[in-house]
Amino acid sequence: MTVEFRDVEAAAARIDGMAVRTPLLSFPALDARIGARVFVKPENLQRTGSFKFRGAYNRLAQLTEEEKRAGVVAWSSGNHAQGVAAAAKLIGAPAAIVMPADAPAIKVANTKAYGAEVVPYDRYTESREEIATRLAEERGATLVPSFDDEDIIAGQGTCGLEIAEQGKAAGVAFNAVLVCCGGGGLVAGSATAIKELSPDTDVYAVEPAGFDDHARSFVAGERVGNDPDARSICDALLAPKPGALTFPINQRLLAGGLVVTDDEARDAMRFAFSELKLVCEPGGAVALAALLTGKLEADAVAVVISGGNVDPGVFAEIISG
Amino acid sequence: MTVEFRDVEAAAARIDGMAVRTPLLSFPALDARIGARVFVKPENLQRTGSFKFRGAYNRLAQLTEEEKRAGVVAWSSGNHAQGVAAAAKLIGAPAAIVMPADAPAIKVANTKAYGAEVVPYDRYTESREEIATRLAEERGATLVPSFDDEDIIAGQGTCGLEIAEQGKAAGVAFNAVLVCCGGGGLVAGSATAIKELSPDTDVYAVEPAGFDDHARSFVAGERVGNDPDARSICDALLAPKPGALTFPINQRLLAGGLVVTDDEARDAMRFAFSELKLVCEPGGAVALAALLTGKLEADAVAVVISGGNVDPGVFAEIISG
Repeated sequence: MTVEFRDVEAAAARIDGMAVRTPLLSFPALDARIGARVFVKPENLQRTGSFKFRGAYNRLAQLTEEEKRAGVVAWSSGNHAQGVAAAAKLIGAPAAIVMPADAPAIKVANTKAYGAEVVPYDRYTESREEIATRLAEERGATLVPSFDDEDIIAGQGTCGLEIAEQGKAAGVAFNAVLVCCGGGGLVAGSATAIKELSPDTDVYAVEPAGFDDHARSFVAGERVGNDPDARSICDALLAPKPGALTFPINQRLLAGGLVVTDDEARDAMRFAFSELKLVCEPGGAVALAALLTGKLEADAVAVVISGGNVDPGVFAEIISG
Repeated sequence: MTVEFRDVEAAAARIDGMAVRTPLLSFPALDARIGARVFVKPENLQRTGSFKFRGAYNRLAQLTEEEKRAGVVAWSSGNHAQGVAAAAKLIGAPAAIVMPADAPAIKVANTKAYGAEVVPYDRYTESREEIATRLAEERGATLVPSFDDEDIIAGQGTCGLEIAEQGKAAGVAFNAVLVCCGGGGLVAGSATAIKELSPDTDVYAVEPAGFDDHARSFVAGERVGNDPDARSICDALLAPKPGALTFPINQRLLAGGLVVTDDEARDAMRFAFSELKLVCEPGGAVALAALLTGKLEADAVAVVISGGNVDPGVFAEIISG
């Protein structure tokens, strides 16, 4: 079981007209700061405010009529929740989402606004998998994993496919593409597309400190998990360990893993506010943070800003800080 | 003296590769909210964080070598200041900018960061025109007006030219385009391009309450000014009355003027933060505000977000409010 380039192409056809084809942006101020040609893929401008809609819609669009009627169940810290809820609304299926009780309020409110039922759980004491699996069984509903699923990976991969296509259209050969990494679905799917269309481009996973399970797993040569006591403001990237499906893909295709601290993510959010005029959530800013802190050097590089769903109070505090 | 479509085309060729060709964005959440196809032209993503670089570069690129050596002088509340300062740096000319002492700190800091000399004045008791004119005379420098100048208007018009071109490429026939209006240069230049390429599209000027001099002048049939005691948070749009050059163009080409309150501008900034993930300054949000408050109905409409240069403290207060 893996994901092929043709799966990403099929996903692109499926989401066409439903997902936003986000632009590939460049900013003279960012180029000057880095001393390179930098391109930003702003998935915060995607439907639901993050890339997660891509995978969710690709998965849900393939449900049978009977499966649609029975509905879908997912667990998510918030962006996958919104992606599944929005996709479910578009295809006319009921959705229930298991979300941490401490998820950002904007993510909970948006998920409910798309018509989904939100089932809260305690991030540190309860198992979201168990709650969601039981719910799905009770209802005969389809479980929609947030990353360890071929259709989800292929859907997220359309982000990388667009980067490769838009780079080519702009006449740019990227040395590197930096993609944030929680469970690893976005970077696995994106690398599948990028390495097919531009084999010389190095793709990196960027993780928050304490949740650098991919970086350590690449070194270990096997999947290793994070300390259960680790904490980070990057609420979108707190997966316990690499996925069974995503890790082999990432191990095969990626050039490595980069790690940024919460303070570096905050600095990147401030930079995006003041120089790029873009609203990033903490997890959405880690790839930009890796570039701004010089963790990688390149002549031509693309970074994904993966989401912008951040509570006003948190954002206000960070930009004022 | 006026501005023709060919002047905008010439400006587009001149700024090519220097200004950012900002994308034309669409957002499912905005379409759903308005019940129409809405397109956003995000000039907050432009070099210097506002559209003003377009006109400034178009003007400065035409200076002779002797004029470049003598330098340029401008007055501005901040966005034209940054545009002129950045353009002057690119062509290698010294720049002095007369700025209000109460201009947003980010605008003053950025203007200085481009290497320009900043000369502060009191917005309510001193004449910026007199200070700047005297400076220019003393130095033999070229005065660069912020709106009442053919090259400035033609340069800003490239924003409208791109909207018309990008709309056509997307297969959209706009009923209306909403453009913010201070001195009226952006809307005059943009209307010059839009009415040439899409004669059936209505172009509207959007102004803050208290600074609705264009709206009242359209009704009066002649240029009327604002109450000198009027105040607004839209610091980029506080021109005292329509320009001698911009007004006849706007009177001829525009469908009318729309007016939004400061609170409506704040609401639009909050909407842009939470739903569009874009940072707007108050004056940059008025066209979006007019649309969100239903001041105009259309099936397909484009709005210009003209700038995003806002102090973190002000932004934090507005999104938290």
